[in-house]
Amino acid sequence: MKSELEFIEKIRRRYSLSKIGDDCAVLPKDSRTDLVITTDLLVEDIDFRRDWTTPEFLGHKSLAVSLSDVAAMGAKPVWAMLSIGVPEAVWKTDFVERFYDGYCRLAGKFNVELVGGDVSKTPDKIVIDSIAAGEVKKNKAVLRSGAKVGDLIFVTGKLGGAAAGLKLLEDGTFYNDSAKIWQKNLLLKQLQPLPQIHAARDLNEKNAATSMIDLSDGLSSDLAHICRESKVGATVYADKIPFHKNLRATAKSFDEKLNLALNGGEDYELLFTVNPKKNFHIENKLKNGFLFHIGEITANTEIIELITHDKIEILQPKGFRHF
Amino acid sequence: MKSELEFIEKIRRRYSLSKIGDDCAVLPKDSRTDLVITTDLLVEDIDFRRDWTTPEFLGHKSLAVSLSDVAAMGAKPVWAMLSIGVPEAVWKTDFVERFYDGYCRLAGKFNVELVGGDVSKTPDKIVIDSIAAGEVKKNKAVLRSGAKVGDLIFVTGKLGGAAAGLKLLEDGTFYNDSAKIWQKNLLLKQLQPLPQIHAARDLNEKNAATSMIDLSDGLSSDLAHICRESKVGATVYADKIPFHKNLRATAKSFDEKLNLALNGGEDYELLFTVNPKKNFHIENKLKNGFLFHIGEITANTEIIELITHDKIEILQPKGFRHF
Repeated sequence: MKSELEFIEKIRRRYSLSKIGDDCAVLPKDSRTDLVITTDLLVEDIDFRRDWTTPEFLGHKSLAVSLSDVAAMGAKPVWAMLSIGVPEAVWKTDFVERFYDGYCRLAGKFNVELVGGDVSKTPDKIVIDSIAAGEVKKNKAVLRSGAKVGDLIFVTGKLGGAAAGLKLLEDGTFYNDSAKIWQKNLLLKQLQPLPQIHAARDLNEKNAATSMIDLSDGLSSDLAHICRESKVGATVYADKIPFHKNLRATAKSFDEKLNLALNGGEDYELLFTVNPKKNFHIENKLKNGFLFHIGEITANTEIIELITHDKIEILQPKGFRHF
Repeated sequence: MKSELEFIEKIRRRYSLSKIGDDCAVLPKDSRTDLVITTDLLVEDIDFRRDWTTPEFLGHKSLAVSLSDVAAMGAKPVWAMLSIGVPEAVWKTDFVERFYDGYCRLAGKFNVELVGGDVSKTPDKIVIDSIAAGEVKKNKAVLRSGAKVGDLIFVTGKLGGAAAGLKLLEDGTFYNDSAKIWQKNLLLKQLQPLPQIHAARDLNEKNAATSMIDLSDGLSSDLAHICRESKVGATVYADKIPFHKNLRATAKSFDEKLNLALNGGEDYELLFTVNPKKNFHIENKLKNGFLFHIGEITANTEIIELITHDKIEILQPKGFRHF
């Protein structure tokens, strides 16, 4: 059975679609600016469950996942569109209004204007298509394809929290008053992720990143995307991967935590590479613990080595995929 | 129960969304150009049925409905994005590839570049979100709100064909070798509509249209949208409404044909208004039967009068709506 990646690659070649394959498409806007744009489809019982979230959280997350793609280009989000389809029974409730409340609150936070959309009926599941667009200086969008051998690899935050939150939901722990603080922390990482807009803009203003992607599928898969598009390999140090502070409550062993951080996905932090000679641009943030150095880019094309305390293994992409 | 229109109006006011409410959002591109953009959500068993169409027709129609929105702004379509979600059983077939074939063939016809998208899994129904963008000279996008009292009302083609095609499908007549030519004509109007890109560009180059909308919901509803946004009314002459040539085969009486043409929807022709002093711009097309004059704009705010041979009645919007 074909994977999503194989299918997209085939379509890309067959129809010569040169703008496909990054977090966003990059399109010329005016003489000084490029427009970046992305679309994300979220389907009930595949990408979310109605009884695990609230309409407000779902509205927030629908926009957040697209803003995260805009951030991954080093761009400033500017406007968005939203298509939503709901069954008649849901339409009759306050679901859609509460969904828009969550959506528009996040939009307001980053001055993103909702400019259009569509409302439709569905037979039984909710479907959402979230479209977001941003602006970036001409030819300054940070692509997946810019990583060079020797570049340092960084992430903008601690990992595994969203996956641990999903585990809690699967085990029947929901976001409500009876949840403990550490549980709420993990659940919020899963249900209400914050896109790394400011970190992305900061990196881009300093021309610091040579390549960038957002951590939606999971570090192992997302780093593989960078390696494939950049035609490079990577070495990652297991003991340098920053774990979410509450991981220890759900994952007992180091290997369990590492698995959540590498393959869990949905942390919506940014993964990026930096030329070591330009490392000074981000040293302050490194010192202050806002950025984490986790490895290096190598010439070992499309091979990612994971170095643990006692061995070196080949890291397989085990993040999320639909097909 | 709230209607779609009421809901969108509420969201528009609550969050001060000034760009919502036309066929496309109009956004500044550069000093000479505006970008127009639209999104359309299509859901299986609501907006289409898998056994009534082919993957190629569905791919074509998914893009066509959005290009029609771009045309309705008087804009030239430039790029598009596509989100598609399918159940696993459909993914395993050649459905998605054939869908893209239909989609990309229409895209190629109008030089529209597919720049991005998303592929997702769904539990059991196919969902499609089609996004299309176009360009138009600065401040020259044709809005729904520009109709003035005394303007003449036109449509770009004959009506009712798509609705008659839908009736055939509902009655079990499908598009295949055993279908008669007139049946194929009607089925193609429903399954493979052609957006009126060239007519729209032509009108806009001459600054001919004061307002415009595409006929997706149905003439009675779409003219009501123009009247509401323009704060005007309208008079429509029943005997001037052009019927699709094959309507007589499915609709026996004049009233049946009139009902299909007024309320059927999905013809994807354009409905527009023209200042009578600028009528000379379109006279040639009128003479050659490419445009049809069907009525006038009146001061009777939000009231549409339908004049038949023996009476005047108030035309209620009876076109398609989800809620």
